[in-house]
Amino acid sequence: MHSKIKVGIVGATGYTGVELLRLLSTHPQIEVTAVTSRSEAGISLADYFPSLRGIYDLAFQTPDEANLDQCDAVFFATPNGVAMKEAPELLKKGVRIIDLSADFRIQDIPTWEQWYGMAHACPDVVRQAVYGLSEMNRDAIAKAQIVANPGCYPTCVSLPLLPLLQQGRLKTGMPLIADCKSGVSGAGRKGNVGSLLCEAGDNFKAYGIGGHRHLPEIKQTISDLQPDIAESFVFVPHLTPMIRGMHATVYLHLQDNIDPYEILSGFYQDSPFVDVMKPGSTPETRSVRGANICRISIQKAPQSPVWIVLSVIDNLVKGAAGQAVQNMNIMFGFDERLGLQSAPLLP
Amino acid sequence: MHSKIKVGIVGATGYTGVELLRLLSTHPQIEVTAVTSRSEAGISLADYFPSLRGIYDLAFQTPDEANLDQCDAVFFATPNGVAMKEAPELLKKGVRIIDLSADFRIQDIPTWEQWYGMAHACPDVVRQAVYGLSEMNRDAIAKAQIVANPGCYPTCVSLPLLPLLQQGRLKTGMPLIADCKSGVSGAGRKGNVGSLLCEAGDNFKAYGIGGHRHLPEIKQTISDLQPDIAESFVFVPHLTPMIRGMHATVYLHLQDNIDPYEILSGFYQDSPFVDVMKPGSTPETRSVRGANICRISIQKAPQSPVWIVLSVIDNLVKGAAGQAVQNMNIMFGFDERLGLQSAPLLP
Amino acid sequence: MHSKIKVGIVGATGYTGVELLRLLSTHPQIEVTAVTSRSEAGISLADYFPSLRGIYDLAFQTPDEANLDQCDAVFFATPNGVAMKEAPELLKKGVRIIDLSADFRIQDIPTWEQWYGMAHACPDVVRQAVYGLSEMNRDAIAKAQIVANPGCYPTCVSLPLLPLLQQGRLKTGMPLIADCKSGVSGAGRKGNVGSLLCEAGDNFKAYGIGGHRHLPEIKQTISDLQPDIAESFVFVPHLTPMIRGMHATVYLHLQDNIDPYEILSGFYQDSPFVDVMKPGSTPETRSVRGANICRISIQKAPQSPVWIVLSVIDNLVKGAAGQAVQNMNIMFGFDERLGLQSAPLLP
Amino acid sequence: MHSKIKVGIVGATGYTGVELLRLLSTHPQIEVTAVTSRSEAGISLADYFPSLRGIYDLAFQTPDEANLDQCDAVFFATPNGVAMKEAPELLKKGVRIIDLSADFRIQDIPTWEQWYGMAHACPDVVRQAVYGLSEMNRDAIAKAQIVANPGCYPTCVSLPLLPLLQQGRLKTGMPLIADCKSGVSGAGRKGNVGSLLCEAGDNFKAYGIGGHRHLPEIKQTISDLQPDIAESFVFVPHLTPMIRGMHATVYLHLQDNIDPYEILSGFYQDSPFVDVMKPGSTPETRSVRGANICRISIQKAPQSPVWIVLSVIDNLVKGAAGQAVQNMNIMFGFDERLGLQSAPLLP
Repeated sequence: MHSKIKVGIVGATGYTGVELLRLLSTHPQIEVTAVTSRSEAGISLADYFPSLRGIYDLAFQTPDEANLDQCDAVFFATPNGVAMKEAPELLKKGVRIIDLSADFRIQDIPTWEQWYGMAHACPDVVRQAVYGLSEMNRDAIAKAQIVANPGCYPTCVSLPLLPLLQQGRLKTGMPLIADCKSGVSGAGRKGNVGSLLCEAGDNFKAYGIGGHRHLPEIKQTISDLQPDIAESFVFVPHLTPMIRGMHATVYLHLQDNIDPYEILSGFYQDSPFVDVMKPGSTPETRSVRGANICRISIQKAPQSPVWIVLSVIDNLVKGAAGQAVQNMNIMFGFDERLGLQSAPLLP
Repeated sequence: MHSKIKVGIVGATGYTGVELLRLLSTHPQIEVTAVTSRSEAGISLADYFPSLRGIYDLAFQTPDEANLDQCDAVFFATPNGVAMKEAPELLKKGVRIIDLSADFRIQDIPTWEQWYGMAHACPDVVRQAVYGLSEMNRDAIAKAQIVANPGCYPTCVSLPLLPLLQQGRLKTGMPLIADCKSGVSGAGRKGNVGSLLCEAGDNFKAYGIGGHRHLPEIKQTISDLQPDIAESFVFVPHLTPMIRGMHATVYLHLQDNIDPYEILSGFYQDSPFVDVMKPGSTPETRSVRGANICRISIQKAPQSPVWIVLSVIDNLVKGAAGQAVQNMNIMFGFDERLGLQSAPLLP
Repeated sequence: MHSKIKVGIVGATGYTGVELLRLLSTHPQIEVTAVTSRSEAGISLADYFPSLRGIYDLAFQTPDEANLDQCDAVFFATPNGVAMKEAPELLKKGVRIIDLSADFRIQDIPTWEQWYGMAHACPDVVRQAVYGLSEMNRDAIAKAQIVANPGCYPTCVSLPLLPLLQQGRLKTGMPLIADCKSGVSGAGRKGNVGSLLCEAGDNFKAYGIGGHRHLPEIKQTISDLQPDIAESFVFVPHLTPMIRGMHATVYLHLQDNIDPYEILSGFYQDSPFVDVMKPGSTPETRSVRGANICRISIQKAPQSPVWIVLSVIDNLVKGAAGQAVQNMNIMFGFDERLGLQSAPLLP
Repeated sequence: MHSKIKVGIVGATGYTGVELLRLLSTHPQIEVTAVTSRSEAGISLADYFPSLRGIYDLAFQTPDEANLDQCDAVFFATPNGVAMKEAPELLKKGVRIIDLSADFRIQDIPTWEQWYGMAHACPDVVRQAVYGLSEMNRDAIAKAQIVANPGCYPTCVSLPLLPLLQQGRLKTGMPLIADCKSGVSGAGRKGNVGSLLCEAGDNFKAYGIGGHRHLPEIKQTISDLQPDIAESFVFVPHLTPMIRGMHATVYLHLQDNIDPYEILSGFYQDSPFVDVMKPGSTPETRSVRGANICRISIQKAPQSPVWIVLSVIDNLVKGAAGQAVQNMNIMFGFDERLGLQSAPLLP
């Protein structure tokens, strides 16, 4: 039997951090050996996250104390702009990295710099990074030293489109619209007024219409697969009063005489985490709560040429920490499902 | 000074019923004299709805006891299929009716019968009924003896489209998509499993994609105004975990070189209950909670020819009871705002 | 007809501020002439609180610009420690003040300074201030130049106890326990992590057990009325995942052979905002949502000498802004109900 | 290696049923071989509960088809009154039973019949049944053929009291008050109006004050351990707007000069599912969401002889399905933690 690999997490005080810790606690092939936070150094995980009492014995460390270069794999669950500064050093030492932030997601550096408002610290590492939409890039992920874990909206929107775009099935010149709804945890564990229960609760609104950072990320994926479609893409994110969960309703036009259900279910038949449901199904976000699953259905709008795709994920799992663990599994040759097998929590 | 008019409510045990009672309690020109319910006859309003303690002294009566024909105006807050049986008799006696159910909304009887699954009891009354989208049909409502109060989705979707359709500004051959999100109160005060807090809470899903009854109602409005657009209409309703509130995100294509903000703000400048916000605004449902207001914004999607309309209402107020009171005000020549002036409840 | 009085609000950017503005918008005898905020000066109310679009034409001003000394009445909706600095100057100019913060609630200055962690700026004004539990101190409030509006917990707990304490009906030596549950808006409109939807949502917890600032405030009221009971008082606040609403469950021991329902309903028979329900009732918070009402019931625990009081208020209305308006009405000789007559919002 | 035991579930269409299926899906020593429902026979689990898609291949069967007598263990997740009719036959065939309903919880048959409103079908089986509060009765559970799984409130209230009652540490003559708050899932997956999102959401209320069925169940436990305390017990349940979670705030009087934290932490030091937190802690329900854990703290009320116990569980896990699995583990000699090791879901 192989010994376990050593795993470190940088910046584990947020929602993706605690979710990583939850999932990794059941993974039989890894051991979390270091968890860093500058602000909480010295605090035990169990005191910081009472849900982890009795599960982890670790305390947060400063990056310096943590000896991350002793790890086999390091997850960055940090705000944008941190991983690009710290990753190069670890890569040199042979550590493999899964970055949950946006630092390595966009291959076009000027585009990244425009949307994220800073200069990129290591463009060369971007070129080396593999975009971690697991079902799209499994082979490249297996060999990658650094994986850019996708954003939540890009995961939810791209997975149902992937097989259709790969085959070039979308009709050009017609709009491709992703109307997306996210739970509030997508905004992170920060004390901003808009995420208060009294502001986001019993309320629904669109936001970021003028331009959300996940727009160029999704466009990049579309461009890679069916370039002439990218300019037709419209993306409107909304905030919905729930903790976890994301729902994309995608409106698209397909070439005539194809059966998209066949294409999707065929493409994903060996993917344990993508569930293509029968046409007519309406997947609901709670059916994937806490689980690394994307459920999809596709059907025609009544009396209309428009196709409607419904896609749901848990934004913190398949949209963040779960896909990160899945990518780690692929990178290290583990069974893709390790640490990701518990059933969704319903109700 | 005029004496107050007498108002009756048929079937006031549901959410639209209690909302009518809340709004009418502050109306200076009316008196609620009869409230009927077969199942709750004899129960006082205050015992049934503790929020009405100290506000109403009435008890529910059977329709027979209630002498509704003594009323000047009667609201039907009943399930579909009730008003069409009881309205004709009251109309003969000169009572004016506002029906909050769907019985008189669709002019084409075969279409109504197909979507509502029953034979219509009085097609002639349908022809006489005025569709009560207040801002569309003010003059006709003022003269009507019976008003068909619109559904919540049709109100939320039609108000922003109305000025554009009237001027024929939508581009033919391109999709017109209404992605709508409703709070759970839209499903009514019935003990169905899908509306439980443990089913609808912390969850988001689409429903009724194959065909929702509000689809033909919205199509009728579009057809009346810009007929060639109706067949391009796509409607997907979603359930969002909040009590009140409805949000429509409408994607549309406009003819070149027009300024839809100008058109909308001009059209609604004298309408106290439609608030056209500056482009770039993102109206939120809580900004109209408890109030008879529709807030609208319109803007271009970035790098795209698609226009995005955002429209919010409280589904129980402008989407039901509030618009019904507004219609009553118009019918009786009252100030349109009576009973509808309290500010939204935020937070 | 009298001219309207001029009203100013200091610090109206929080939840009690916007609630004051909502309630005052329907008050026929007043006009809001000044609203101050140092941080938001220049911003219109309608832009800051979209729920107030079309209702107020005012913008926030700095305190200097606002000429508050021209007002007849000024509400302080500020953090603790502000009113005590600004009130004395206004009082000298003859302005009447209702302070919604805690600055003037505690008559014993050392106690106040210990619990609020600062030196009091004007102990003499404290002695002059009347504690604004409206139903307890109506006569004194009518003559007061400055009223200390009570905290939300003290209002919810004290109203049901008031008649019993006044008559000295509680049994000494036995515990008096207030187990209280508050909606999250009680924590204010501040970006603290604990009030996030993802922290406070789908969660329930006690807090402040070691000592909450409302403990000495409630004890003061008890001491004033039945002093030997104060030391038996236990207070445990809890946070419950809702926006508005407060529920107190009070456990107490009464002297033998008294009928507390009679005592309470007799005491409150002329109080429009206290609703004593029949024994066996279980008032719910939503029955007072948005309304200036306290609903109360009292009953024996089965097979036990313990009495159980249930008391509900909307923490932002009877627990803050509504009681403040009620106190203003009493101070200026208006009908106590002006601005406070709209029915609770249910559902 | 032993072969897996065969497990059946009767009545798995409710919340405790789907929770049992979730937990058992990760249990390495069992196989679910039969799931019954009269109303849903023929429907696959995956169609009924979309969260179970890809996890179970079973369909609901009628009890007749299901051959439950071939199972090693059968869980009853049925309404009260079902298990007492079906259990005797299975017991005769040697099947071991864990009943999640109330049929076998109360040893005194007249008491049971009074509270549950029916005649008991098998009083002799009641005498044979072991009360399944795991930490109280481990040895008896290990040998039992039938275990009566406790109610959610009794579990949450009894676990912190157990060590104190066993040592006779409560003061007689003083009240013992359990103020309890439950999420809505405790009401089950039934279409009753009171559990609708629009009724139970954004609302808080007490219920069942006149007498809740869990009152005699808790009193039975108290009587067994420190009989003179039972008559001092007061129990008030409340409904709080969350899906899962239960919080008990217990007020009690202890004999002088004891350290209850020492007593509790000593008693539970080898219990993997009871977490005694340091005095001053305030456990929150979300810290146990989805997990079979009871977290407890105990501390003195300030300036008072009253002790305050805080106790939280997930009502569907330690309060129902989780404790049932724990009991099965004890009965079959498995590691007590099997199937119960995933971390709580936070946020």
